[in-house]
Amino acid sequence: MVQHMSRKRPIVTYKNGQLQGVEDEIVTEFPITIHINGEEFATMVCTPTHLEELIIGFLASEGAILFKDDVTDLIIDESAGFAYVTLKSEIHEKQQQHSKRFIGSCCGKSRQFYFQNDVRTAKTSMAKTRLKPEDCLNLMKMMQKNSLVFKNTGGVHNAALCTPSEILVGRADIGRHNAIDKLYGHSLLNKIPVRDKVIVFSGRISSEILIKAAKIGVGIVLSKSAPTDLAIQLADDLNITTVGFIRGESFNVYSHPERISDYSMAE
Amino acid sequence: MVQHMSRKRPIVTYKNGQLQGVEDEIVTEFPITIHINGEEFATMVCTPTHLEELIIGFLASEGAILFKDDVTDLIIDESAGFAYVTLKSEIHEKQQQHSKRFIGSCCGKSRQFYFQNDVRTAKTSMAKTRLKPEDCLNLMKMMQKNSLVFKNTGGVHNAALCTPSEILVGRADIGRHNAIDKLYGHSLLNKIPVRDKVIVFSGRISSEILIKAAKIGVGIVLSKSAPTDLAIQLADDLNITTVGFIRGESFNVYSHPERISDYSMAE
Repeated sequence: MVQHMSRKRPIVTYKNGQLQGVEDEIVTEFPITIHINGEEFATMVCTPTHLEELIIGFLASEGAILFKDDVTDLIIDESAGFAYVTLKSEIHEKQQQHSKRFIGSCCGKSRQFYFQNDVRTAKTSMAKTRLKPEDCLNLMKMMQKNSLVFKNTGGVHNAALCTPSEILVGRADIGRHNAIDKLYGHSLLNKIPVRDKVIVFSGRISSEILIKAAKIGVGIVLSKSAPTDLAIQLADDLNITTVGFIRGESFNVYSHPERISDYSMAE
Repeated sequence: MVQHMSRKRPIVTYKNGQLQGVEDEIVTEFPITIHINGEEFATMVCTPTHLEELIIGFLASEGAILFKDDVTDLIIDESAGFAYVTLKSEIHEKQQQHSKRFIGSCCGKSRQFYFQNDVRTAKTSMAKTRLKPEDCLNLMKMMQKNSLVFKNTGGVHNAALCTPSEILVGRADIGRHNAIDKLYGHSLLNKIPVRDKVIVFSGRISSEILIKAAKIGVGIVLSKSAPTDLAIQLADDLNITTVGFIRGESFNVYSHPERISDYSMAE
């Protein structure tokens, strides 16, 4: 069974003071349950495209794997919504702590972390990439131009892995996190160096999105929306540039503006 | 320590071709870890307002409690971000299965469910409430008018519990689910009958939001955004009316249009 990103459905629409039956395009939401080495690990709902990337990216985000080669087998039963993952080794106890609260102490990592696993896997960025203001505007425009499903259904988030001048790969998902996990999976599966890349995202930069970007290893995150204060604090600590509210010809830089290259001239 | 919904922060803005330093209002994101009867249960990130409602609503959503009185003690340590819940009884094994995958069978409940706990706690609506098309438009306008933080920070979701003509209570959160959980907690804490009420929501109606609405027990969900196909299938089964894309003077009805009162006239 092939899953689709959206499907047509009869609905009732109200327009010009009248109710009438029409056909509409509705975004698909698909539950998938991941088993690791025979045990149920997690169930997530997603847009059923690029499932292999999603699963690999999710496993990496959760700290269950670091590289593609940590997975010795991956079977996806798309019709039933199950994925069976075989890892080289058992999940370590450390990794099972993935959703346990982190209690900050003087360990040199940000006290803004709240999960133990994130402290271990989110990296401080060493990226030397710089963007001109026009690059920020252009990358957002290019991503939006590529995202037809959003226009049709109003229901998915878009994320893209980019160089300063072009989009390398774009992914969409109803889940904000899933869109980023698909990029993560794509970069692991294809062994794409990420340090010099940029993530462009349609959704808000929450702490969880920022931590995912740090795990992937990019130095710049561009978003159409606003970041949260916790995401900005993490970005400050992890040396990640966050740019938000990219709309039309304007945007805001919330952390590490030194990577936006005209900034020194404006001071 | 009092937590705030947003705080001011220096940022760099790009406008009219120039970068300059300004002050901006940033939405707060706050991690809170819930312990139940001495054991760590979950950590969530939220907007730190109405924390008691959020925690009670979250526990009910997760199937850990059914009524306010199932909680014998709740201590919130806001400065550290911890909540200590004492329940009358231990969490039953059934409730610990809250995130285990549900395998559909002929049990009379929707095969669209994917978590075991949801099958047990989401109710089929018996609501007799009806809305006129103008009610749908007015309730959305009223909620948006009340939501100042969204305008200032671009970062929160809004949800409101309403009668057909007025908003009873409105809540905001950076987390889509949290905004609805706060309403759930509010209705449990204040023993508000919900069957005849309506939920108005700024975000997309995903399956998870629809299931929360079914647990709360309302018969109508109004949204500014689009639902997913899985949410519509669940709404069909659970007898819930979903109305989406309420913008200006138009909207779409995706399930059970019989509760939108002019509909019979339009046929």
